Amino acid sequence: MKKRPLILVTNDDGITAPGIRNLIEAMNELGDVVVVAPDSPQSGMGHAITLDSTLYCNPINIDDDGPQLEYKCSGTPADCVKLAVNEILNRKPDLCVSGINHGSNASINVIYSGTMSAAVEAGIEGVPAIGFSLLDYTWKANFIGLKSYIKKIAQNVLDNGLPDGVVLNVNFPRTKDGVFKGLRICRQARANWKEEFDKRVNPQGKEYYWLTGTFVNLDHGEDTDMWALSNNYISVVPVQFDLTAHHFIQKLNSWDL
Amino acid sequence: MKKRPLILVTNDDGITAPGIRNLIEAMNELGDVVVVAPDSPQSGMGHAITLDSTLYCNPINIDDDGPQLEYKCSGTPADCVKLAVNEILNRKPDLCVSGINHGSNASINVIYSGTMSAAVEAGIEGVPAIGFSLLDYTWKANFIGLKSYIKKIAQNVLDNGLPDGVVLNVNFPRTKDGVFKGLRICRQARANWKEEFDKRVNPQGKEYYWLTGTFVNLDHGEDTDMWALSNNYISVVPVQFDLTAHHFIQKLNSWDL
Repeated sequence: MKKRPLILVTNDDGITAPGIRNLIEAMNELGDVVVVAPDSPQSGMGHAITLDSTLYCNPINIDDDGPQLEYKCSGTPADCVKLAVNEILNRKPDLCVSGINHGSNASINVIYSGTMSAAVEAGIEGVPAIGFSLLDYTWKANFIGLKSYIKKIAQNVLDNGLPDGVVLNVNFPRTKDGVFKGLRICRQARANWKEEFDKRVNPQGKEYYWLTGTFVNLDHGEDTDMWALSNNYISVVPVQFDLTAHHFIQKLNSWDL
Repeated sequence: MKKRPLILVTNDDGITAPGIRNLIEAMNELGDVVVVAPDSPQSGMGHAITLDSTLYCNPINIDDDGPQLEYKCSGTPADCVKLAVNEILNRKPDLCVSGINHGSNASINVIYSGTMSAAVEAGIEGVPAIGFSLLDYTWKANFIGLKSYIKKIAQNVLDNGLPDGVVLNVNFPRTKDGVFKGLRICRQARANWKEEFDKRVNPQGKEYYWLTGTFVNLDHGEDTDMWALSNNYISVVPVQFDLTAHHFIQKLNSWDL
């Protein structure tokens, strides 16, 4: 009989977020689940790690009916994965899934995303990993319809593995009825935030800012995650963490440095 | 007469760190300098941005003799660049330089690095950008010998520009006399941290951890940044922020998803 896979679950919205509770439920049907997730929201943390401060990581019981083991951690999503793999788990997990994020991690958002940083950190540790996100920021986001896709993608990664240095970034469009047109393998769209700072004055008379902005997509390719999502497809982007711009090395060698 | 270039300087060690003070001095010889840097150390912040909290950004005078304008910011390195480009500066800078980081940002450290995230953020905003780091964590690091290289690399970027989506990651080896064997254009080495968590008990009896670890390089290529640095060369890696693993797209299309 085949051994049940060991699956590590984490996220960046915090261990009580509806997104991770839905992800745990789906993973319980595929393997033995251990959750190590932040004890508070960590959105926009990027690949931050905790160097100058202490980390707490303790068992917690959120779901009396669930078979999974759970730990809440005071650190970032990347910290959670490092702690899980090196301290909490007694063997290397067969899969790490992160999410389901409340909000998009498509296009350049992959860079700012705590959800995807957890997946990338797992990839760095040699663990096949997937980040899942739904394009709905609300706590009442509708996760109906995602489960079968999530299970299928996770099972494929368990069966086929992933190449060294590659993790998956999966985004679900927001739909009224939880029905998707299908799934597309995509590249990251060349799009970015146009920041607008909301300048205010605090009660002590000091000026401060809130970071806001609008997302601008000038990439008209139909092979991008942005195109897939705006056409009601689930987007799957293979993501790498060798950031070398290999195509520019030859040119750079011709510079007078 | 050619207009003097506008140069944005930032870092992740904080605005008073010797590394950034040396970088400002070098940049003052190339153009008009505006500094927007964190008011406290931000090492290991990765590409974190401040979403759920306020940002302060105020003028500060650290160097009475310097011609540069300076602002200290309560946010992360990526926040500093966003604020500088969208609020502080009245035109898009011609160059953004980040550093000089006290410590290595070679290999996978590019992912965790606040220094490099600032450079990447500038790249996302369409500003040519370079991150500089010295392999010496101490506050008393010896920056002698770096200035001529830094000026030459920055001048090359000012003269030649950089392709869309590419920034430079420059690391200097630690030398006794500030003399380097030369400079190498490199790829990011496949190396990573082997974490070791130092588990302790706090005065209230609660267990906590410190993140520590050793860096393991199993990449024996002589075209890597790790090779260059251990052989006393300055490493220059072109870094991209399209993270798509293009080489895996075809294979992924053959999966049953």
